[in-house]
Amino acid sequence: MDRVTLETLLDAVARGQVTPDEAAQRLERLPFVDLHYAKVDTHRQLRTGLPEVIYAPGKTSEQIRGIARALLSEPGGPLLVTRASPKVFSSLRELAPEATYSALGRTIVLRAEVGAPIGTVGIVTAGTSDLPVAEEAASTLEAASVKVDRIADVGVAGLHRLLAESERIRAADVLIVAAGMEGALPSLVGGMVACPVIAVPTSVGYGSSFGGLAALLAMLNSCAPGIAVMNIDNGFGAAALAVRMLRARAA
Amino acid sequence: MDRVTLETLLDAVARGQVTPDEAAQRLERLPFVDLHYAKVDTHRQLRTGLPEVIYAPGKTSEQIRGIARALLSEPGGPLLVTRASPKVFSSLRELAPEATYSALGRTIVLRAEVGAPIGTVGIVTAGTSDLPVAEEAASTLEAASVKVDRIADVGVAGLHRLLAESERIRAADVLIVAAGMEGALPSLVGGMVACPVIAVPTSVGYGSSFGGLAALLAMLNSCAPGIAVMNIDNGFGAAALAVRMLRARAA
Amino acid sequence: MDRVTLETLLDAVARGQVTPDEAAQRLERLPFVDLHYAKVDTHRQLRTGLPEVIYAPGKTSEQIRGIARALLSEPGGPLLVTRASPKVFSSLRELAPEATYSALGRTIVLRAEVGAPIGTVGIVTAGTSDLPVAEEAASTLEAASVKVDRIADVGVAGLHRLLAESERIRAADVLIVAAGMEGALPSLVGGMVACPVIAVPTSVGYGSSFGGLAALLAMLNSCAPGIAVMNIDNGFGAAALAVRMLRARAA
Amino acid sequence: MDRVTLETLLDAVARGQVTPDEAAQRLERLPFVDLHYAKVDTHRQLRTGLPEVIYAPGKTSEQIRGIARALLSEPGGPLLVTRASPKVFSSLRELAPEATYSALGRTIVLRAEVGAPIGTVGIVTAGTSDLPVAEEAASTLEAASVKVDRIADVGVAGLHRLLAESERIRAADVLIVAAGMEGALPSLVGGMVACPVIAVPTSVGYGSSFGGLAALLAMLNSCAPGIAVMNIDNGFGAAALAVRMLRARAA
Amino acid sequence: MDRVTLETLLDAVARGQVTPDEAAQRLERLPFVDLHYAKVDTHRQLRTGLPEVIYAPGKTSEQIRGIARALLSEPGGPLLVTRASPKVFSSLRELAPEATYSALGRTIVLRAEVGAPIGTVGIVTAGTSDLPVAEEAASTLEAASVKVDRIADVGVAGLHRLLAESERIRAADVLIVAAGMEGALPSLVGGMVACPVIAVPTSVGYGSSFGGLAALLAMLNSCAPGIAVMNIDNGFGAAALAVRMLRARAA
Amino acid sequence: MDRVTLETLLDAVARGQVTPDEAAQRLERLPFVDLHYAKVDTHRQLRTGLPEVIYAPGKTSEQIRGIARALLSEPGGPLLVTRASPKVFSSLRELAPEATYSALGRTIVLRAEVGAPIGTVGIVTAGTSDLPVAEEAASTLEAASVKVDRIADVGVAGLHRLLAESERIRAADVLIVAAGMEGALPSLVGGMVACPVIAVPTSVGYGSSFGGLAALLAMLNSCAPGIAVMNIDNGFGAAALAVRMLRARAA
Amino acid sequence: MDRVTLETLLDAVARGQVTPDEAAQRLERLPFVDLHYAKVDTHRQLRTGLPEVIYAPGKTSEQIRGIARALLSEPGGPLLVTRASPKVFSSLRELAPEATYSALGRTIVLRAEVGAPIGTVGIVTAGTSDLPVAEEAASTLEAASVKVDRIADVGVAGLHRLLAESERIRAADVLIVAAGMEGALPSLVGGMVACPVIAVPTSVGYGSSFGGLAALLAMLNSCAPGIAVMNIDNGFGAAALAVRMLRARAA
Amino acid sequence: MDRVTLETLLDAVARGQVTPDEAAQRLERLPFVDLHYAKVDTHRQLRTGLPEVIYAPGKTSEQIRGIARALLSEPGGPLLVTRASPKVFSSLRELAPEATYSALGRTIVLRAEVGAPIGTVGIVTAGTSDLPVAEEAASTLEAASVKVDRIADVGVAGLHRLLAESERIRAADVLIVAAGMEGALPSLVGGMVACPVIAVPTSVGYGSSFGGLAALLAMLNSCAPGIAVMNIDNGFGAAALAVRMLRARAA
Repeated sequence: MDRVTLETLLDAVARGQVTPDEAAQRLERLPFVDLHYAKVDTHRQLRTGLPEVIYAPGKTSEQIRGIARALLSEPGGPLLVTRASPKVFSSLRELAPEATYSALGRTIVLRAEVGAPIGTVGIVTAGTSDLPVAEEAASTLEAASVKVDRIADVGVAGLHRLLAESERIRAADVLIVAAGMEGALPSLVGGMVACPVIAVPTSVGYGSSFGGLAALLAMLNSCAPGIAVMNIDNGFGAAALAVRMLRARAA
Repeated sequence: MDRVTLETLLDAVARGQVTPDEAAQRLERLPFVDLHYAKVDTHRQLRTGLPEVIYAPGKTSEQIRGIARALLSEPGGPLLVTRASPKVFSSLRELAPEATYSALGRTIVLRAEVGAPIGTVGIVTAGTSDLPVAEEAASTLEAASVKVDRIADVGVAGLHRLLAESERIRAADVLIVAAGMEGALPSLVGGMVACPVIAVPTSVGYGSSFGGLAALLAMLNSCAPGIAVMNIDNGFGAAALAVRMLRARAA
Repeated sequence: MDRVTLETLLDAVARGQVTPDEAAQRLERLPFVDLHYAKVDTHRQLRTGLPEVIYAPGKTSEQIRGIARALLSEPGGPLLVTRASPKVFSSLRELAPEATYSALGRTIVLRAEVGAPIGTVGIVTAGTSDLPVAEEAASTLEAASVKVDRIADVGVAGLHRLLAESERIRAADVLIVAAGMEGALPSLVGGMVACPVIAVPTSVGYGSSFGGLAALLAMLNSCAPGIAVMNIDNGFGAAALAVRMLRARAA
Repeated sequence: MDRVTLETLLDAVARGQVTPDEAAQRLERLPFVDLHYAKVDTHRQLRTGLPEVIYAPGKTSEQIRGIARALLSEPGGPLLVTRASPKVFSSLRELAPEATYSALGRTIVLRAEVGAPIGTVGIVTAGTSDLPVAEEAASTLEAASVKVDRIADVGVAGLHRLLAESERIRAADVLIVAAGMEGALPSLVGGMVACPVIAVPTSVGYGSSFGGLAALLAMLNSCAPGIAVMNIDNGFGAAALAVRMLRARAA
Repeated sequence: MDRVTLETLLDAVARGQVTPDEAAQRLERLPFVDLHYAKVDTHRQLRTGLPEVIYAPGKTSEQIRGIARALLSEPGGPLLVTRASPKVFSSLRELAPEATYSALGRTIVLRAEVGAPIGTVGIVTAGTSDLPVAEEAASTLEAASVKVDRIADVGVAGLHRLLAESERIRAADVLIVAAGMEGALPSLVGGMVACPVIAVPTSVGYGSSFGGLAALLAMLNSCAPGIAVMNIDNGFGAAALAVRMLRARAA
Repeated sequence: MDRVTLETLLDAVARGQVTPDEAAQRLERLPFVDLHYAKVDTHRQLRTGLPEVIYAPGKTSEQIRGIARALLSEPGGPLLVTRASPKVFSSLRELAPEATYSALGRTIVLRAEVGAPIGTVGIVTAGTSDLPVAEEAASTLEAASVKVDRIADVGVAGLHRLLAESERIRAADVLIVAAGMEGALPSLVGGMVACPVIAVPTSVGYGSSFGGLAALLAMLNSCAPGIAVMNIDNGFGAAALAVRMLRARAA
Repeated sequence: MDRVTLETLLDAVARGQVTPDEAAQRLERLPFVDLHYAKVDTHRQLRTGLPEVIYAPGKTSEQIRGIARALLSEPGGPLLVTRASPKVFSSLRELAPEATYSALGRTIVLRAEVGAPIGTVGIVTAGTSDLPVAEEAASTLEAASVKVDRIADVGVAGLHRLLAESERIRAADVLIVAAGMEGALPSLVGGMVACPVIAVPTSVGYGSSFGGLAALLAMLNSCAPGIAVMNIDNGFGAAALAVRMLRARAA
Repeated sequence: MDRVTLETLLDAVARGQVTPDEAAQRLERLPFVDLHYAKVDTHRQLRTGLPEVIYAPGKTSEQIRGIARALLSEPGGPLLVTRASPKVFSSLRELAPEATYSALGRTIVLRAEVGAPIGTVGIVTAGTSDLPVAEEAASTLEAASVKVDRIADVGVAGLHRLLAESERIRAADVLIVAAGMEGALPSLVGGMVACPVIAVPTSVGYGSSFGGLAALLAMLNSCAPGIAVMNIDNGFGAAALAVRMLRARAA
């Protein structure tokens, strides 16, 4: 509740149009639906402009359906379920018949934004095994009216593959770079472009990659200045950050 | 070297204006000055639009001066030395008489950009001990024609201090949030605003903060989607990322 | 054995009512039942006033049944089995027909305390996926005559949800706050209330949450002073600590 | 700001005693003093009833003095500076002539509470080297009208020393147990008493104690149920938690 | 090959009883059977007097059988397979009809030593879930003519259970103490007795026990001097160390 | 593209044999096949002389087949799939009927080099459970015309087994030493020979071996100078390094 | 207090020779001297037969002197101060004029045992830098009437140095093996001898030795069965364990 | 002692030229000088062909001088002291007047090899702060008759600097690549060349670089196959490995 709304409400109290008691209630009425097991924040998109997400692991199908129903019951922006199995998708189909599922990214888009693209995000991956993370990001972005350019398998061991794509890389408004193993790709890309670079370490690797820790530490210590780092395998988060950037630009 | 330059050069060869040998040399001549101990990348700013930095630790005063001289010898954008002692500052004064030093942020600005502000970055800190990191970011931003709004000591244990600043927080184009200890502040700020949020864990704390690791992990696992995370105490990096975002917007 | 009992016994020896040999035996007779694979501490509740628990993992159904039988054979307070599968519950039903099972909290209550509530504990969770840990705590508390107020899904990314519940939060005698991911919620709650706050990190999260380590470190480094921290996912322990506090108050 | 205050204010607006604009200002006026480098939360004690603390490391003497002056300018409860050098103490003496300094606990008490004791806290230490942490807790408690019983050097390698103090241990309302090395003492104490036990791992040890990590992990995994764990060396935090418990009891 | 054997051989060469070539061969002929996938050290027991073990994980049934056959083909001392499934036991029965299997300890004794006991080892466990590790140690010891006294479930949260067994504990020649969670038991036992104490951390616990790491670190940092620490869950190793001690005593 | 090729191309432009546009295209045409999900680097072997590998985990059978087909479509050197299941092998048989599969090393050789051996690599393993890693290395080497000498089960607890093989060990051009547990074998071997030693830690072990971390750290800290260390279980990498050495020698 | 003493006391009560009150006091009177900052356990040596130690770090000179005085005031066995600076030694000289100081081992022997040697301990070190740890062990042993054989610098990179000392190594009753870096030496020694081997990791090394962690993990994972592991740099502890073994043998 | 020597000796025994006793002594006489605190391995260079090194930290000046004297007393190859202060250098000058000291690499060369270069090693560094590690490697190599080509400051954020040196990089027989921070440079270099690449992580960086751990993990997980990894800051080790490779080639 911003100051304008607050002053308007207090004016109405002063003019007798709203009783003090009613005003107190309004000041405390909050924009969420309480399902007991969840407090669904129906106004978050209005507040932050970001895609809304239901993270599936650790929730029952009933809980996911309940939260989805509450969010769909109000108008809003893009709505996704991430890390979702095909079974979860089935259980949501009657609720949202037009929902789509990306098996690669394990992402359900329950509601997509309709409108002109607000920008282009290049999603660069080091290897084929990084594609699921990239696809989680891509689904999120496309549901939020962002154009996606997928630039796959340009890892640093074959530099010419990366250089061959330098035109597409330089054309993006924002870049998401996903890499496992030694996680070096964001440093290289960060040295090639002036636009914001979002680095996503992936859990691709074995042994001393320690589930993506090696790539995470590498990205945090990048010698290319100004690289944004996300949690391991967090494709959705990278997309959400890109949307923050593009929305800010559009505003 | 972009494609246009390449084609122009090749046309000149085809027209006999440039000999093949000279073209080969030009194709290999690279935009740096070789000091033996350093290859100073004099074109990085032109290429990436970012402030150029000399990270002082592990370099002798002579090396720092040599690199600074090479960078100042060509026109360019903002140039800083970070983690610099007053002694390093003294040794650089004859080279750049107008250089300024922030004792709090341990930052020397050797050359600042002149021009209209390209946007406003709010720098939010959890506690007084986080100010050095914030100041490193602020020096960098101000040298790059970015307006800075410093919002200090709004840590999560006294929520009303944060809420009292919500207007200033919402007014920024980009937010940098620095916090040590449990590193919770970026999650809160991230839930309040739609603009990009850059989280900087600081090494403030003791015992199981493990030099900032606790705050770093907290920020990587933020439940507010789309938070960019930087290395521990990396105020410069946060500023560089903010500049990437604002330049992209301005472009 | 406290000093009063000791002096009484020695008086009886001095008066010839008890032989020295018998006194020596009594001094060494200990309040447990030896099942070979377990020494069941039948007096612990009398000694510490806490709920007694059988931690199921790593024990066979036979062992669990044997320990339960020994504990039920003496009068006592609340008795629970934690981390129990439905199969374990089945195998205990003939032993304790009135036992109840919480599928969410994986907790069997074999014996509950009957009596007036000794206080109210608010159990606050950051997200829906933290509910199993909360429910383990709730089952334990309810078996020990403690009133429970469940306040779910008030994580820090939507601050208004937390503020909307501030009245219920302030009404509790003790608060248990369970959160995964960045584990920031206890810091916020700790800054809002004067009562004791017990923080339980949960293993909810992925990648660099490292099975709850990120939340654990955050809670140990809370900037709100006086937060009690428990092991990851340890809902039972949090409840036991709350009972210690409420019993001390009641005493 | 609680609901009663809110309704009173709105009534005043409705009755024309307060203008809407003034009400909006009051609703946003916040209980802190802004020193630019710090927002001093002058109402925290009123809100949470806890001792207020200035953590000295990372702050200049000027900053500490400024924060202290702001806090002392309003009536309030106990006020301390922790991890303070004798030099910091000197710089604060003119501000608070009656301030006291504990060289062992490195704690300055700037203002102590006057009044009847609200309870007794036993502070149990495993070894002589744990005393500084114990003393930080003791100073804090004594400044908050809590009686302290110091029970030193009763580590687990000489069990009879612990058992010899069982009467004092059982007499306390709350126990703080500080131990380094293997950190086993809280488990033993926790099995002996019904009252709340607060475990503080200390950095005493070498090699694989990893600065207190061994003791911290041991305490988090205590087989005695209901042990509250604090950060390594956090004597102040343990005291603050004890005050929360005793205040709740007194309420 | 010790010096006496060496001199005898060289004497034989000097006397012409053995040719130089044959001596060189003997000097290089080594006491093992080469199975290509394994070099079975048939003389290790003669050399070190310790039970011989085949660690089952990562080996095929064929490999285990081959190694067992080679070891059984020569006279020797106790021979075990550890971490063995019932299936491995079945596959070895024809080879060694008198072999025995401990389902709890997952240990197969292929050949046991016959002879008078060389001493008594007390195996003390903190809880019921530590019994498998204890049983691996017990099987090994019993196969090596060591008497075992099993003292179960005397964890530190109920001190009287431990004290009740102090006579049995003091009667042992060597003590093996297995504990998970906070791993405090060896410190207590180490303070009670003069004999050698072998501490075995177990992986019993969850969350921040990190698979036994908490107990391991606690035991390495024991304040009771002179505690021998083994790898996590290494019951066999503890038994082997006890045999080293008892054999040395017997020698 | 080396300088000679570059000058030849530019000469052709200068002589009008190649148009500037065509030259620009050639300069940017890169030696890979773009499958969308992968950019197959068909010239890597020509460039680096190393065996080409498809790492199977995280790739679908379709993707593996697609990448294999692209690589087989051009002449080249050895081509392998590592960490491959028998199912993957089946799905590749029609593509490469002469492919072979090592069940122990989980390696498919799709194309082997034909030619005289370029040297001998001794593969030394500490125990039977290290053989899969050794076999991955052996398959790779044999596919690259390297002779392999397998020296198994010479771990440090039975030194005579190692010494017995000293002649074979000294005969190799390069040694690969794979060991789990304490990872001591490379230090010993490194002190015995002058040739390069490549140490491969394996994940053999349990408890505090932490999946091979103990062996990895040991090898990195070897007191024998000049030991090359690889990632945990990385048999392929060790073979690739050996090929680099032998090719350099042959060149 | 053992059972015999207990029965004697109770008999005296029954016979009227001791009053019940006096008996209760005696039963609670404990064998320590309370210095407030320390409870000096004057009977530990009688109880456990081990050398008594004052660990200097974290204690003031006054505290060390006080504890030493209390321990010296009763007859007893060997008494040491470990990790002691020359300054601490000076401050103790008047108290114990015959005290000796080992500058290498940083150990003060305040009281040594007089009597026939109870056995021989071989102290084997991998390198010259491990000598301080070895010397701490040696001082402790010699103060406890144990003969010490120092076998220095036989690290695994020059195997012949170790083999050259095999006779001395085999002659010891117990072996202490100290090594930093990769910590391989105990595995080798453990495979050569039948007597107990005590492994002490040292903090010698750099980089990924992580202060002795690499050596510690290696020793815990030794493939030679039955190796006792101590904390990093814990020479005293190793000596104490050796004394436990030799005393048990002598008993 | 190889087989030829062994047979020769035994022949001499058989022919009566050597007595059995003398042969036994020779078989046991080992090629080292025993200084009590060190066993100087005077034949290691003859055996392994590698430079001999004295690692200075943890050794007194007297010990270093003693070891140096012993090694210089026999003919041999290159001899160095690493991590040496100028003070150590001074103390060695009288012993070896022609010794040289590299202040940057902290390396003393006591004896250098004279002879034709055995190959060229390119030492590639990512940044100016990595030069000390590079210089330690360079001193070692030059003392061993290896030609060194220093290629400094070609980190991945400015790719053109690396590509500009591709000719020098491709000309080396072996490459040593030292990098801190994200440690990405070896992956890039490894993809560019066919020769062996030795990666040395450096401790350059801060925060989550964790003293070089980030770079170490990155290098172990390199996607370029066949990269040899060394301990953090281990320039000497990298040089020793390069010498192993070049000697093998020369053989």
